[in-house]
Amino acid sequence: MIGVDVGGTKILAGVVSRAGAVVRQRESPTPLSSEEALLDGLEAAVRGVLDDAVAAVGFGVPSRIDQRVGVAIASANIPLVGVPLRDVMQARLGLPVVIENDANAAAIAEWVAGAGRGTRDMVMLTLGTGVGGGLILGGKPYRGSIGAGVELGHVVLVHDGLPCSCGGRGHVESYVSGTAADAIAREAFGPDADAHELVRLAREGDPTAVELLAEIGRKLGSAIGSLINTFDPELIVIGGGFAAAGELLLAPAREVIAREALKPMRDSVRIVDAELGTSAGMVGAALAAFEPLDAAAA
Amino acid sequence: MIGVDVGGTKILAGVVSRAGAVVRQRESPTPLSSEEALLDGLEAAVRGVLDDAVAAVGFGVPSRIDQRVGVAIASANIPLVGVPLRDVMQARLGLPVVIENDANAAAIAEWVAGAGRGTRDMVMLTLGTGVGGGLILGGKPYRGSIGAGVELGHVVLVHDGLPCSCGGRGHVESYVSGTAADAIAREAFGPDADAHELVRLAREGDPTAVELLAEIGRKLGSAIGSLINTFDPELIVIGGGFAAAGELLLAPAREVIAREALKPMRDSVRIVDAELGTSAGMVGAALAAFEPLDAAAA
Repeated sequence: MIGVDVGGTKILAGVVSRAGAVVRQRESPTPLSSEEALLDGLEAAVRGVLDDAVAAVGFGVPSRIDQRVGVAIASANIPLVGVPLRDVMQARLGLPVVIENDANAAAIAEWVAGAGRGTRDMVMLTLGTGVGGGLILGGKPYRGSIGAGVELGHVVLVHDGLPCSCGGRGHVESYVSGTAADAIAREAFGPDADAHELVRLAREGDPTAVELLAEIGRKLGSAIGSLINTFDPELIVIGGGFAAAGELLLAPAREVIAREALKPMRDSVRIVDAELGTSAGMVGAALAAFEPLDAAAA
Repeated sequence: MIGVDVGGTKILAGVVSRAGAVVRQRESPTPLSSEEALLDGLEAAVRGVLDDAVAAVGFGVPSRIDQRVGVAIASANIPLVGVPLRDVMQARLGLPVVIENDANAAAIAEWVAGAGRGTRDMVMLTLGTGVGGGLILGGKPYRGSIGAGVELGHVVLVHDGLPCSCGGRGHVESYVSGTAADAIAREAFGPDADAHELVRLAREGDPTAVELLAEIGRKLGSAIGSLINTFDPELIVIGGGFAAAGELLLAPAREVIAREALKPMRDSVRIVDAELGTSAGMVGAALAAFEPLDAAAA
């Protein structure tokens, strides 16, 4: 299978085995000038790694997806909104195509080949620019009734709280994402500061930065506590660029998890870091492309 | 199958068909004086409706359950905590026994025989003394990795908010349950008021009561919005005694759902009232008892 991670700045395409091993991969910039340029770029990325053994292609895209029609909906960063991506790429490539939300793809990758190997009930939270989520429930990926799930970044954490980019209020994404941390850093340290600066200052021991990250971590703890009470999962996997803040976030998060999560699930769940890093989206997109073939063979 | 709904004041036991039809049923008071008296009462309730055709018994209990050991944990209202209920009742009755959280049981009943017939992805929210939840995902009941899921009343709705009976803060149950409405009614209308009085006054047009119920409804809307974004369900079923407040709660809830829930799932989900009323727990407990037999036969 070929997996393609469609990012806001670059496209990562690779050939991936059923076990999630990357056979070869290639990176290219994401053409953002128009929808047509992007589709050309995606086709070229696939052709750059394609050979005769490839049976299908999976695209991981930063967008909610309506799987009923294979359309990407409401993507913040790339010109894909309303494009019938599945059908268009299928016609261009002459191969079966699957499209998948990028956070779902990362969860599938971690489940098959990363931190979640061997689990049946796993929740993955990706803390990046936004907050994405992926669920493995009962030993398979869960996507909801129209394939638009699961948007764990858009769970309400503070009723009537901060405005979210989606139009909602008080969503997890408005408090524990890289974008939220950017805004918090700017407010505390001036217009040039951002999440990276906030983490750097906290690592150097700046007490304001430590406390600001701790407060983000406490909110993350509430969000994770809710996930534990909702799913009674074996495992919660934390990934994404902002998760690199590590214990500065996770130590305060654990204190709040201990308060919010119920026994006995709070004693049985494990919370771990993602293992696959930046290749998770590509690997998961390829693994998602196996699913319809497996279903057809079954 | 026999289903037994173990309530805080009464036990409802009945013989239930695979389609969820109640063949016969009997009600008895719940003995709360001791664990032994309760177990005697449960056994007597089953024997009161038992005949030779009954193959198994399901108990729906107001408690989180650790299905690994068949033990009821952390029940607020009845002396069952730590009792190995499944094994004890199995030994007493000489029949296979299943134990199930009461809100999960209600969800299974609505799915098989009530408002959720024919759905694959359904969320049920029971607004009673507390708030319970049940999930049908991918065409079967979801209970989590140790069977302690799903506690939708203990999702954080307000980070660092009101204390919850479980020790957490700002949980859904602290804002939209009958108990929460009791407290709100007392604060507004004096020590003798309760949720029933609040709903009665609102029906009569008392503006304070209408606004207080509307605020509870708006918080319910945030909670439901989160469920839509998390599960992308076909259907959300609202049941429980406090749901009898009807449009006084649901009209304001719908306004907030429209703000919090994402497209396209917000356009595809339906939100409906439960159909089975007070028999849902008993019916669902019986239906849950079919599952291990079906699994063994498959």
